[in-house]
Amino acid sequence: MTEQPVEGRKRVVIERVSPEIDCGRFPIKRVVGERVVVEADVFADGHDQIACQILYWQDEKKLKTTPMLPLGNDRWRSEFSAEELGRYYYTVEGWIDRFETWRVALLKRAAASQDVRVELLLGTDLIAEVAAQAMGEDARLLRQWAIRLREAKDKPEGAAIALEEGLLELVRRYPVKHFASRYGKQLMAMVDREAARFSTWYEVFPRSCARQAGRHGTFRDCELWLPHIASMGFDVVYLPPIHPIGREFRKGKNNSPNSQPTDPGSPWAIGSAEGGHKSIHPDLGTLADFKHFVSAAGKQGLEVAIDIAFQCAPDHPYVREHPEWFRKRPDGTIQYAENPPKKYQDIYPLDFESAEWLALWEELKSVFDYWIDQGVLIFRVDNPHTKPFPFWEWAIAEIKERHPEVLFLAEAFTKPAVMQRLSKLGFSQSYTYFTWRNTKQEITEYFSELVETELQEYFRPSLWPNTPDILPGFLQVGKRPAFMVRLLLAATLGASYGIYGPAFELCENTPFQPGSEEYLNSEKYEIKHRDLLSAGSLRDFIARINQIRKEHSALQGNRSLRFHETDNPDLICYSKTSDDLSDVIVVIVNLDCVRAQTGWVDLDLRSLGLDADQTFPVHDLLGQGEYLWHGSRNYVALTPESLPAHILHVRR
Amino acid sequence: MTEQPVEGRKRVVIERVSPEIDCGRFPIKRVVGERVVVEADVFADGHDQIACQILYWQDEKKLKTTPMLPLGNDRWRSEFSAEELGRYYYTVEGWIDRFETWRVALLKRAAASQDVRVELLLGTDLIAEVAAQAMGEDARLLRQWAIRLREAKDKPEGAAIALEEGLLELVRRYPVKHFASRYGKQLMAMVDREAARFSTWYEVFPRSCARQAGRHGTFRDCELWLPHIASMGFDVVYLPPIHPIGREFRKGKNNSPNSQPTDPGSPWAIGSAEGGHKSIHPDLGTLADFKHFVSAAGKQGLEVAIDIAFQCAPDHPYVREHPEWFRKRPDGTIQYAENPPKKYQDIYPLDFESAEWLALWEELKSVFDYWIDQGVLIFRVDNPHTKPFPFWEWAIAEIKERHPEVLFLAEAFTKPAVMQRLSKLGFSQSYTYFTWRNTKQEITEYFSELVETELQEYFRPSLWPNTPDILPGFLQVGKRPAFMVRLLLAATLGASYGIYGPAFELCENTPFQPGSEEYLNSEKYEIKHRDLLSAGSLRDFIARINQIRKEHSALQGNRSLRFHETDNPDLICYSKTSDDLSDVIVVIVNLDCVRAQTGWVDLDLRSLGLDADQTFPVHDLLGQGEYLWHGSRNYVALTPESLPAHILHVRR
Repeated sequence: MTEQPVEGRKRVVIERVSPEIDCGRFPIKRVVGERVVVEADVFADGHDQIACQILYWQDEKKLKTTPMLPLGNDRWRSEFSAEELGRYYYTVEGWIDRFETWRVALLKRAAASQDVRVELLLGTDLIAEVAAQAMGEDARLLRQWAIRLREAKDKPEGAAIALEEGLLELVRRYPVKHFASRYGKQLMAMVDREAARFSTWYEVFPRSCARQAGRHGTFRDCELWLPHIASMGFDVVYLPPIHPIGREFRKGKNNSPNSQPTDPGSPWAIGSAEGGHKSIHPDLGTLADFKHFVSAAGKQGLEVAIDIAFQCAPDHPYVREHPEWFRKRPDGTIQYAENPPKKYQDIYPLDFESAEWLALWEELKSVFDYWIDQGVLIFRVDNPHTKPFPFWEWAIAEIKERHPEVLFLAEAFTKPAVMQRLSKLGFSQSYTYFTWRNTKQEITEYFSELVETELQEYFRPSLWPNTPDILPGFLQVGKRPAFMVRLLLAATLGASYGIYGPAFELCENTPFQPGSEEYLNSEKYEIKHRDLLSAGSLRDFIARINQIRKEHSALQGNRSLRFHETDNPDLICYSKTSDDLSDVIVVIVNLDCVRAQTGWVDLDLRSLGLDADQTFPVHDLLGQGEYLWHGSRNYVALTPESLPAHILHVRR
Repeated sequence: MTEQPVEGRKRVVIERVSPEIDCGRFPIKRVVGERVVVEADVFADGHDQIACQILYWQDEKKLKTTPMLPLGNDRWRSEFSAEELGRYYYTVEGWIDRFETWRVALLKRAAASQDVRVELLLGTDLIAEVAAQAMGEDARLLRQWAIRLREAKDKPEGAAIALEEGLLELVRRYPVKHFASRYGKQLMAMVDREAARFSTWYEVFPRSCARQAGRHGTFRDCELWLPHIASMGFDVVYLPPIHPIGREFRKGKNNSPNSQPTDPGSPWAIGSAEGGHKSIHPDLGTLADFKHFVSAAGKQGLEVAIDIAFQCAPDHPYVREHPEWFRKRPDGTIQYAENPPKKYQDIYPLDFESAEWLALWEELKSVFDYWIDQGVLIFRVDNPHTKPFPFWEWAIAEIKERHPEVLFLAEAFTKPAVMQRLSKLGFSQSYTYFTWRNTKQEITEYFSELVETELQEYFRPSLWPNTPDILPGFLQVGKRPAFMVRLLLAATLGASYGIYGPAFELCENTPFQPGSEEYLNSEKYEIKHRDLLSAGSLRDFIARINQIRKEHSALQGNRSLRFHETDNPDLICYSKTSDDLSDVIVVIVNLDCVRAQTGWVDLDLRSLGLDADQTFPVHDLLGQGEYLWHGSRNYVALTPESLPAHILHVRR
C-alpha cells in the first residue's frame, strides 16, 4: 500500500529549485564572496498566504536563513553569499503564514466595511503566538499589541491597530511555522578560492630555461624566468610533468619512434629507474630546488601548477612493483597505450579494472597529497577523461575535504557530456573548445552556451589559444596579428585563460607538416632555447591585456558575458560587467587578421545599465582612445596589429 | 570522509534520462498500448565501446530489457510499450562492451595490415566468455567459433573469421556485462486505460431531465436522455453532485442569499439531514435507481462520471458527527467558506489542518471507494486545489493501486504550477485555460506549451468550451457560430474534451449580467426545462465532429499536434497524426464568427510525412469537399456557420 505521510498537514509545496545540478547529485561552484541566487516554485492549496526562506549552512548546527521574496506566478527568490572555502549546503523551507493570511483578509474586510469583531479576536490569538516565541522588548511589545487589539473589540480603531506597520515588522521577525515543508534535497555549493574563477596561466618547460643553448634547464634556471612571466601579469606558472622520463621506447625528435641517446624524451612518458610520480627529474634539480622554485614564484606573485599525468613509461617503478595495476595481453606482455591502429609503446596505461583498483586509487591520490605537501595547490590533470569518473569524484572530494584551497584543471579536449561530467564531479576548471572557435558565429554560439545554460553553475572555462599539443590552423595562417586576436579573445571572453608561453609570446607557428596541429620540432620531444627579448615578441601586448584584466572586475567573471550585434561578420562585440554594474567593459574585436574592418555595433544598452538615448564616454583601455558614444548604435574601425580591438571602459 | 564506492570499476556514466519528472518523484502517464521512448546520455572514460539497455518492469521479478541505440553525441534511445494497466518502472543500464571494443579495434588493425596474432587470442577468450553464458545451439556455435579463431592464429583468415557477421549477431544475444552501471533511479509510468487520453464528456444535471416542466428530474428521467447523448458520440456522461443538498443558508435563484422554500439549492452545497457524500438526493431517486442509470448508460456505450466536491453544507452529517474536521472561530461558530470580502455561509470547508487529519483523509477516500463499489470509475473532482496536495497524492495512489482503471479529472482553474502539481501527483486529466484562449496566438502558445514541453508526459488536457460556472465572453458575443468554432477547436485540439451539454447544444449564451461569466438563471440554483429538439440545436454538428474523432486515431492523442503557418490571423491551422503517420488530419478553423476569411496555409510537410513537391488529395471530413493540394502552400476559404472549418484527411 501507498505510504501515509507521517505529517499530512504540510501543505506547502516546494518545486523547481534552482540552481540544482542533476537533481542535486553534484554541487554548483562558487568562489569566496560570490552570491548564490536561489529560486523555487513555492505554493500551497487554497488561498492562504505563504512564506518561505532559504536555509544554508556549512555546519549543520549553524543553519542560517534568509527570507525569499515573490517574483510572481509562484516563483520565489533569495540569495546568500558564500563567505568560506569548502562545501555549503542549501535548501528551501516554506509554510502557511497565518498572520499574513489574516492581515490580508482583514485589509479586504476593512475596505468593505465589514464587521471584524471575530477577526480581531483571531488576530489577538495570532499575535500572542508570535509573542510567545519572541524575546525581551519585542515580546513585550507584541503582548501589549495583542492586549490593545483585544480591548479594541468592535471599536472602529480595532482594524487600524491590527494593521499598523510596526506590528507587521515585528511579527516578521518571528515567523511562526506550523507544518513547515522542507525541500527534499540538500543542495550543495563547492566554494573555491578566487583563482578558481579568475586566473592567468603561463605554461613553460623548465628544461628549456637554461641560459646556454644545449644545456638541460633546471628549476634554478626557470626561477630566472619568473620576473619575466610575472611582469606580463600572469599569476599561475604551469609546468609539464617534472618527473623522471622513461628510457624504454623513448621518443625522439618530432615524436620519432627512434630516439638518440641525447634525446631528453617526452615529459609525459613518466617514470624510470630514477623514480615515478613522486620523484623529480634529476636534470631539473632536487626536491629542495623545486621547493625553492615554488617559493621564488610566490615572491613574484605567481603560483606553481604542475601537470599530473597518470600513465607510466615501461620503466616506471609501478610496472615492476605493481604489475597488478597493468593489463596483461595473452602473450604475457603488458598492454601499451593504443588508439588503433596507432600504438604508443612508450606509455603503459593504468588498468582501472584491476582487481586491485582500490590500492591503485589510494596510490594515485597520494601523488596529489605528496605534491600538496611540497606546496603545490594547483594541478593540471592530463587526459582525465581516460580514467574512470568515479575515481576523480572520490579523489578530488577527498583532497578538497582536507585542502579546500586546492584546484584542478581538467585537460579534457573531448565530447561535451564527458567534459561536463568531469566538471560536475569536481574539476575546478576545464579546457574548452575555444581553441578551435574562430568565427563570430562559432564564438557566439559556444560562449552563449557556456554562460546562458546550467553550465555556468559548474563548468569554469579555461581558454587556451595554444598548447604544446595544439598549434591551431588560425595561428599557423594568421601569424602575429592572429596571435594578438586570439589572446584578446581568450583574455576577455574568459575570466581564466592560459598560453603555452614562450611559443605564444614569440608567435611560433610552424606546424610539423601541413594540416597538422603539432608544432615542428615540438618542445615535447626536445629542449628549446629561445630569445625572449627578440623583436616581434608579444610581451608588451600581453602585459597590457593582463593589466586591464587585473584592473577591471568585470573581466574577472563569466556570468555577465553578453554578445551584441554588429553589422560586420568580422567584428565581434561583447560585454562584461561587475554584478553591481559599477564596472562595464565592451569589447569589439576585428577577427580579420589581414584587413581593417569597420562597422556599426548595436549595443543591448539595458544589459549595460544604460538608457536608450544616453550619451556616454567610453575609454579604450587598449588603444587609449576616448570616444563619446550615443545610444545603441555606434561606429568602429579596427586595424589588424595596430588596433585589432577596442576594450572599452564605459564611463558614466 | 568521502565514501569510497563499493565497486570502483563501474566506468559507464548514465545521465539526463528522459522522460523523468521532477527527478523521478512523479510518474509519467501513458495509456495501455502507448510507447515510452527513453533516452539517456551514456558514456565511459577512454575509447572503449559501450552498450546500454532499458530495463522495465511491473513486477521486479520479471525484468524486461531492450537495447538502446546511439543517436550520436553520447545520446542513446530505445522504447518499450506499456501493455498493462498500473504502474511500470523503468531505468537504464550500461556497460563496457569488451567484445565490440575488441572487434572495432581489430577492424582498424586489419585495415592497417597490422599483426593481429595477440588480438585473435584475446578474441578467443572474449568469445569463450560469451559462450559460457549462452545456451544450447548458440553456446555450441560460439565455442566452435572460439576454436576456429584460436586455430587460425597468424593465418590471414584469422581476422576474417573474427569479423564474420554471424558471430556478431550471436554475441549480441548474450551481452557480457562486467561492472555494469545502473541509473540511480527507478522511474515510473502510470498506465491508464484509453479513456484517460481520449474521451468525450457531456455534463448534465439529472434534476433538469424531467419531461414535465416544474418537476424535479430523476435518474429514471435522465435515462431517457442517454440515447440522445450517445447519438451525438459522447462516451462519458458527467453528473454534478448527486447528494442531498443542505437547507441551512440555501442559495436561491441566481445565487441569491435568500432562497424560497421551493428553491432546490446548489448541488455543490452538499449534505443535509438526508445524508452526505455517500447518499443520494431523495428527489433524484434511490441507490438502486442510480445503479440502474449507470447500467443503462453502459448499454448506450456511455460511462457515468460523478462530481466529488469535498465541502459541506452546514447541515451535512459530518458537521454534527465530526466537529473536529471543521475550524472553529473564536466566537464558537464554525468557519464558513470565504474569499474575503466574499462570504459563502452555505459552505463549510473541511479543515485539513485538523489534529484528526488522518481520520478525515480516510473518510474522504472512502467516499471514492463507496462510489467505485456502485460502479463509478470516473470522478470529476471539484476544486482539488483547495485541498492539500499530499491528500490527493495519497488518496489517488491508494485507489489506483486497487483500481487502476479509475480516472480522476481535476477541476482546477488556477495557477500553472498548482494545476501541474495536481497532474503530477495523480490526476488523470485536468481542466485547462482553453476556455479563455480564443485568438490564434493565444491558442498556438498555450497548446505548444502543452505538447512541446515536459507537460506532455503527465498533463492530460480536458478542453471545455463552457461549464455551469463559465459562459465565456466569446460565446456570449459570437452566438451560434462561436459555439461551432469553440466546439471544433475543443474536439480537434484536445483528445479529451467536454461540454456542459444542454446549455451548449442549445447555444445558451445570456450572462447573469454584462461582464459576468455566470449564466443568467443558472442551472446551479434552479431546475431547467429544455426542448432538446429546438431549431438551432447543434446536435447534428456535434454528432458529426464526434464521429470524425472516433474514426480518426490521429485525433485521439495530443503529442502529434503541430501548428502550421497561415497568412491570415483569423485562420488557424494545425495537424495531428497517428504515430505511424497512417492517419493524417489537417484542421483549419476560421476564428472569425462573423465574416468569411480566406488565405494561404503553409504546411510543414515533413511533419505530415509528405514531400516538398508532392500533390496530395485531401478530403474535408466536415464539409465533404475533395481538394487536390500541392506542396506546402494551399488556399482556403471558410465561412462562419456554413463552413467554419476544414477537417482535412490527407490521402496518399
